[in-house]
Amino acid sequence: VKVDGRPYRSIWRADDGRAALIVDQTLLPHEFRVVRLETLEEAARAIADMQVRGAPLIGVTAAYGMALALLRDPSDAGVARAVSVLGATRPTAVNLHWALRQVEAAVSGVAPEARADTAFRLADRMAEEDVERNRALGAHGLEVLREAAEARRGEPVRVLTHCNAGWLATVDWGTATSPVYQAWDAGIPLHVWVDETRPRLQGARLTAWEMAGLGVPHRVVPDGAAAWLMRTGQVDLVIVGTDRTTAAGDVANKIGTYPLALAASDNGVPFFVAAPSPSIDWELSDGADIPIEERAAEEVTEVQGADPDGSVRAVRIANPGSDAANFAFDVTPARLVTGIVTERGVCAATREGLAALFREPGAGEEPPEGR
Amino acid sequence: VKVDGRPYRSIWRADDGRAALIVDQTLLPHEFRVVRLETLEEAARAIADMQVRGAPLIGVTAAYGMALALLRDPSDAGVARAVSVLGATRPTAVNLHWALRQVEAAVSGVAPEARADTAFRLADRMAEEDVERNRALGAHGLEVLREAAEARRGEPVRVLTHCNAGWLATVDWGTATSPVYQAWDAGIPLHVWVDETRPRLQGARLTAWEMAGLGVPHRVVPDGAAAWLMRTGQVDLVIVGTDRTTAAGDVANKIGTYPLALAASDNGVPFFVAAPSPSIDWELSDGADIPIEERAAEEVTEVQGADPDGSVRAVRIANPGSDAANFAFDVTPARLVTGIVTERGVCAATREGLAALFREPGAGEEPPEGR
Repeated sequence: VKVDGRPYRSIWRADDGRAALIVDQTLLPHEFRVVRLETLEEAARAIADMQVRGAPLIGVTAAYGMALALLRDPSDAGVARAVSVLGATRPTAVNLHWALRQVEAAVSGVAPEARADTAFRLADRMAEEDVERNRALGAHGLEVLREAAEARRGEPVRVLTHCNAGWLATVDWGTATSPVYQAWDAGIPLHVWVDETRPRLQGARLTAWEMAGLGVPHRVVPDGAAAWLMRTGQVDLVIVGTDRTTAAGDVANKIGTYPLALAASDNGVPFFVAAPSPSIDWELSDGADIPIEERAAEEVTEVQGADPDGSVRAVRIANPGSDAANFAFDVTPARLVTGIVTERGVCAATREGLAALFREPGAGEEPPEGR
Repeated sequence: VKVDGRPYRSIWRADDGRAALIVDQTLLPHEFRVVRLETLEEAARAIADMQVRGAPLIGVTAAYGMALALLRDPSDAGVARAVSVLGATRPTAVNLHWALRQVEAAVSGVAPEARADTAFRLADRMAEEDVERNRALGAHGLEVLREAAEARRGEPVRVLTHCNAGWLATVDWGTATSPVYQAWDAGIPLHVWVDETRPRLQGARLTAWEMAGLGVPHRVVPDGAAAWLMRTGQVDLVIVGTDRTTAAGDVANKIGTYPLALAASDNGVPFFVAAPSPSIDWELSDGADIPIEERAAEEVTEVQGADPDGSVRAVRIANPGSDAANFAFDVTPARLVTGIVTERGVCAATREGLAALFREPGAGEEPPEGR
């Protein structure tokens, strides 16, 4: 996408080839700052502190993190250490482990002195593939929006989304937003309800910023208001991303997604999940087996925002004596999901639905078996 | 309750008899400031700006507001104007209109020069009755918690609540918190999950402050996390307040209550509503007829909190170019409500259930007919 008229991705290789550049997402929308990652530790910290976030972008950042690690220590021990450090940053997004396994396999048969270069080239390719995968996913999602638009007969299609599954969460296009952006480009009138997404406000900060940047009409709502919007007939469909979807269609996504799905079900609103294949965990069936990250209480008890002069600061919102719990994700059972939108099409949230799209041998880089 | 060892209510008459004193709830928990209301306009502003909030306290404040108005203009026109100004402050809580009607009726047969005094004495009595009503409600709710405690066999009963239906929302005791406080006093082990309650954070600011003040173990969670707590078996029951409950049991309460009830239903968690009788609108059956207040977008796009030095300030959290919607309440359909806890007992959320408790003629100040 373009930011102030200049094309950007959420991550790219530095001109000197020996670093990855990212946009620091903890500062958006208040400040657009590009940060240079040069070491394994910097890459791991960028993921853990959520300077980069979103399952697809976490995966690509981890791949670059491997390359950065191998610049300094390309030994087998160095490979193992990088996998370990990066793998421990965040537990829920399966893309992280998917990416680490890919790089690990790619460098294993390569002489140490060539490993960093191999890893960089693979990371570059993974970034390109992420863009293409999300573009394809969006083209399938576009058809869903086109149908909704026909039912609305010229009135804007009212889409509700949660967290940020936008281009910032991927390398470009986004997952849940890719159909939205493609529909907008195709002239389909839209209105996007943006769940603010407590505690870290990725909706209010990042998705709203993306929508404003591309000119898509939108309004932010507190997370608790989404159900009421659905109950009062103000939402035509919900589409969210996912950090890990099981082979049977249970969907781990940002905390607050499961109650959205309940509200959609109670009100007959279609509930779609945009899941590029690296987000699918073919080894798990039951969403209860997905590890759910718990983060620091301060992310709940304090809020970061901008002063009138634009400077960013954190303020304490909760009672000072009170502790908080901060589960970063929840799991939506497959029974509440209308459809899963992938780069190969839209399917039911069932083992059969997913397998039908991904089982043909050799049809893509994501075989459902043998990982 | 006691605050720092000194007994307080949320509203009381000044020693000179000619003003009402309140605790400014927009500043809590960062500052405990008592504010003196001397005029109709000050009382109306205190309600509209949410220096006082909570349906029962709004009702009592409106009664004092009538008295303050009649100090200056006790004419029939003055009465009508005060009813009009106070009645326009907030649309959803039915207690407001209940209180205004009571005062209007009480002063109508009284000579103008005696009206302010009549209104003050009625407001005083309404405050006392609110305390007694919520104490009685809590005694009935205590039995619900006692049963839950037996099932927990000595482990803490895990109660989840939303917004602040605490003593700050009433004159004393609270509605949803009255059973909690009485159970705590009775030695029943408890753990309270406090929904932070965006946008105005009444849970994180006020309920957490109340719980900490009384020593009740508790943790704050983002609103979107409550469903996950229920799904993972960490909640024994939900109890919330109400701003208006219809004669058939539909429950208007703070935005975000309806998705809580959906999550409770999906996970077999009992969902109780603490509804003192002035919160029941006997003239409405269908929750869809309850007027839902819309408030300023800035309550969503900005958040107020405290700096490390304790000074209170607002910061912008949302993307600066983005608008927000701010529905203050939602309506939970009666089918999702396990029971309604009132000052006369616990009943089903049905017309029959409520009528059985309140229909005996002359049994209380709240006849179900003729209002």
